[in-house]
Amino acid sequence: MPAPDLSDSRLTFTPMARISDPAILIPNARDGDRRALARLITIVENGGRASDAVLSAVFPDGGRAWTTGLTGAPGAGKSTLTDRLIDAVRAAGSEVAVVAVDPSSPFSGGAVLGDRVRMQDHVDDAGVYIRSMASRGHLGGISAATPRVVATLDGMGFPEVLVETVGVGQAEVEIAANADTTVVVVNPGWGDSVQAAKAGLLEVGDVFIVNKADRPGVHETVRDLTQMLELGANGGWSPPIIPTVAATGEGVAELWDAVGRHRRHIQETGELAEVRRHRSVAEMESALLAGMRQRVRSSIPAETWAEMTDQVGERQLDPWNAAANLLRVLSD
Amino acid sequence: MPAPDLSDSRLTFTPMARISDPAILIPNARDGDRRALARLITIVENGGRASDAVLSAVFPDGGRAWTTGLTGAPGAGKSTLTDRLIDAVRAAGSEVAVVAVDPSSPFSGGAVLGDRVRMQDHVDDAGVYIRSMASRGHLGGISAATPRVVATLDGMGFPEVLVETVGVGQAEVEIAANADTTVVVVNPGWGDSVQAAKAGLLEVGDVFIVNKADRPGVHETVRDLTQMLELGANGGWSPPIIPTVAATGEGVAELWDAVGRHRRHIQETGELAEVRRHRSVAEMESALLAGMRQRVRSSIPAETWAEMTDQVGERQLDPWNAAANLLRVLSD
Repeated sequence: MPAPDLSDSRLTFTPMARISDPAILIPNARDGDRRALARLITIVENGGRASDAVLSAVFPDGGRAWTTGLTGAPGAGKSTLTDRLIDAVRAAGSEVAVVAVDPSSPFSGGAVLGDRVRMQDHVDDAGVYIRSMASRGHLGGISAATPRVVATLDGMGFPEVLVETVGVGQAEVEIAANADTTVVVVNPGWGDSVQAAKAGLLEVGDVFIVNKADRPGVHETVRDLTQMLELGANGGWSPPIIPTVAATGEGVAELWDAVGRHRRHIQETGELAEVRRHRSVAEMESALLAGMRQRVRSSIPAETWAEMTDQVGERQLDPWNAAANLLRVLSD
Repeated sequence: MPAPDLSDSRLTFTPMARISDPAILIPNARDGDRRALARLITIVENGGRASDAVLSAVFPDGGRAWTTGLTGAPGAGKSTLTDRLIDAVRAAGSEVAVVAVDPSSPFSGGAVLGDRVRMQDHVDDAGVYIRSMASRGHLGGISAATPRVVATLDGMGFPEVLVETVGVGQAEVEIAANADTTVVVVNPGWGDSVQAAKAGLLEVGDVFIVNKADRPGVHETVRDLTQMLELGANGGWSPPIIPTVAATGEGVAELWDAVGRHRRHIQETGELAEVRRHRSVAEMESALLAGMRQRVRSSIPAETWAEMTDQVGERQLDPWNAAANLLRVLSD
């Protein structure tokens, strides 16, 4: 009797890791299969047609998640606060998804000296899903894929989505465009930095947190923030300023309560519907632009690109007329 | 005898304000006509074919200006430092052009409380040209037109160009891509903010200034910066950290000396040529993308755009598949 032919196709099997068909992944992910969810998100992160197919399938079930963005300078304590918020949301009985865009976040594997956040605390909780993302696409900013990932988690039925981003300039503005409630985290002694961040930060925060409130200077920081927010007040929502000590959990309940109040406020005033509409259109424009960029890469012959690049690099041609030349190539 | 016909074409004249022909403006601007220069810059700021024509004409004479960028948080004292640097450059006998992108800069007409900078101090000096720009094009960042404006000033023969930008996040990175020497301005007591700005600021600064050094905390800030810069040191240029009091002029000579040392360093190592090459190619890509954006606006029928926008706004269609639809329209 001959030995069985192990190359026989009947003996092969498709391991879970190979399944990439959204038609299988989506119902599995909805049933709580975290590996299926992780694969869906990878598809969506990578973009392109497969991503469009997933989003087209999950989008109709979305629109119900509340997205809370946490932003602030590296070291302000966003990760520890996020960690505490997970506890608060779970205690209230909701499932929660966390998207960590901050590359230095312990959620993303970044080992921050002395950090006490331990993702392992949540790893056995089926009601918590944590996803870290590289901040590719934008220099130092929120990943361009974040809105797609949030839309997927929304479509999968997570009622709460927390998005933690490294708050360096541009990112604050971007997170505001992608979260229903934006929480800005600062530390005591911010002083001049309050002034510094004025242009970008004060406009986007719905809730302000003075974290590490066991340090000196809390009172002054709260006072500074209050004064500056009053300057820009428009009669609508007045962003609360809440001292917290994330390390001990102090003030975290008040933070979550403030998010809830902001939520009810923008739901009742109709602001939410308007903001979400604008956000969707902005995302469409952004996706269109990304598509155009891709088309440029594939439409311009490599030798033409190299020639323009060389001429510009050698100052034989200025960058603007070179770009005009390339645009003409695209028209042909 | 009949009254003269005042509509006679021989009696009309072309006032200076009407001249917009680069062939006239360029030689006039080179001869020191500041109104001609201002008009050229307006053309270049506005972009398009007229801008390309100007840049094509002035570019071959460029490549000789040294561009020094000053960036830092609002209120750090960039404008006062710029003011002092103008004096230093003039004392050394060079002409200097200043481009102020910071909308809150007194150079741009922004009235900052208690600010002592007075543009009038330079208004009678034919060796100084100051141009303020709106930060349009990028949200809160350096104006997209700045590289074109700098190239024009370069082509006009200014040996020194100072670019002052509001240093909020993304802008720091952008100014670094457009200046030969990047000066980062901070204040004493920056403390935690040093940590905060780490991701963006430390990498781009060629010279660090601790301005308002008559305040407490200078020593600590210099120490913090030194330690952090040592962490990222790569064996090449070690950015000096210089305390200044712009209000009295203290340290400004040292600042200008440091810019000169950095200049010689990157000239001698060949880094300058390489960086400028990369910068030109990046600017070409950026101009190409802007051109694509313009094309999208003119190629997609208004009703198609309105339809997609409505469907996305009403959640009848997701933004990503809407963008894919629009891309197909552009291909037709």
